Amino acid sequence: MRVGELSRRTGIPVPTIKYYLREGLLPHGELTCPNQAQYGERHIRRLKLLRALLEVGGLSIAAAREVVAEVDAPEVSLHQTLGVAQRAVTPPCVAADDPDDPAWADPAWHEAIGAADAWVAGRGWRVRKGGPASASLAQLIRTLSDLGRLDLLGILDDYAAAAERLAAAELDLVGRRADPDGQVESAVLGTVLGDALLATMRRLAQEDASRRAFATREAS
Amino acid sequence: MRVGELSRRTGIPVPTIKYYLREGLLPHGELTCPNQAQYGERHIRRLKLLRALLEVGGLSIAAAREVVAEVDAPEVSLHQTLGVAQRAVTPPCVAADDPDDPAWADPAWHEAIGAADAWVAGRGWRVRKGGPASASLAQLIRTLSDLGRLDLLGILDDYAAAAERLAAAELDLVGRRADPDGQVESAVLGTVLGDALLATMRRLAQEDASRRAFATREAS
Repeated sequence: MRVGELSRRTGIPVPTIKYYLREGLLPHGELTCPNQAQYGERHIRRLKLLRALLEVGGLSIAAAREVVAEVDAPEVSLHQTLGVAQRAVTPPCVAADDPDDPAWADPAWHEAIGAADAWVAGRGWRVRKGGPASASLAQLIRTLSDLGRLDLLGILDDYAAAAERLAAAELDLVGRRADPDGQVESAVLGTVLGDALLATMRRLAQEDASRRAFATREAS
Repeated sequence: MRVGELSRRTGIPVPTIKYYLREGLLPHGELTCPNQAQYGERHIRRLKLLRALLEVGGLSIAAAREVVAEVDAPEVSLHQTLGVAQRAVTPPCVAADDPDDPAWADPAWHEAIGAADAWVAGRGWRVRKGGPASASLAQLIRTLSDLGRLDLLGILDDYAAAAERLAAAELDLVGRRADPDGQVESAVLGTVLGDALLATMRRLAQEDASRRAFATREAS
């Protein structure tokens, strides 16, 4: 099909499709004559995936490019694809490992990194030291310590237990697909949309729990 | 203390403090002479809270302004404060309730809203219909249906169970503070930083689980 039909079938405007082509997010179609390319079902599928990543997952163009490059690479391991998807959705954090960052000179920051590493080790998790998630945890510890509210870290074990159960359920979902392409897509969608789904579930559960706990009591 | 000392004690530059004053995020100091204001401990505390909301929680200036206005309002209920904090951290979604939005004319969108409402009701959650969380869920259902991957919704019950347990633990933490100010601050920090904490826990647990499941198998 030509680009106009691709646009009609996906609801994505032609200029946006051309932008994705230029940005390397969408593979080029097959040239049938010098100025005309033909697109197929895989282009439709890719455009739907891009919409999920960009509009629903809120990824930047650069992060989406990294994710689809990983989806297209035939030989990478699933563990590696999950890592790329994770980094794409992890918000930027203070550059803890960059000696030029002013945080580097701050002893409180090093203390927070040490506390984060110790907490992770105590939980029995084996993860890359200095990765973005470890740095995020250090930043959160630093912030709560600064506010004198380290009591809020008491909830960390509840969060960790929930995260462990969800990680197991997600991997189970990935493993259920027999086809490698479906596995990779599940891994990417699970990571990117999983965040949004979980945040949504939290909002709904919080609203329900808060109403039960406070709304009636305060109304009475 | 004067603004210079306020800056030294919080590590926040004077121009940034002045910006927060102009934007209504920080209450003005007491004027001792026409051009000189005095600041106190509550200004230090507020600046630390702002840093948590803006830098760690990733809120926009407008969203942070709404949250601190709620923190300052003496008579609002805790249920209401939690609602404002929730809306501040909920990413903008398609304007499902705006008849001018093109989505309004799309039957698939209405179908997704119906599916989302039915799912929430089936879970026994009582939440405001058409709220941002319901719209997010509808958008996610729509996206997965579009990709032909409604199988991924199988994980929704796992997410919901985790969200219920966490909401209960969070409310417990809020209730443990005897002072109303501490309760409101816990509610706000729990909602805003809780998202970041939970996302961080997920990254760590996912990395650990993925390594166990795939990395060794693929290496062998």
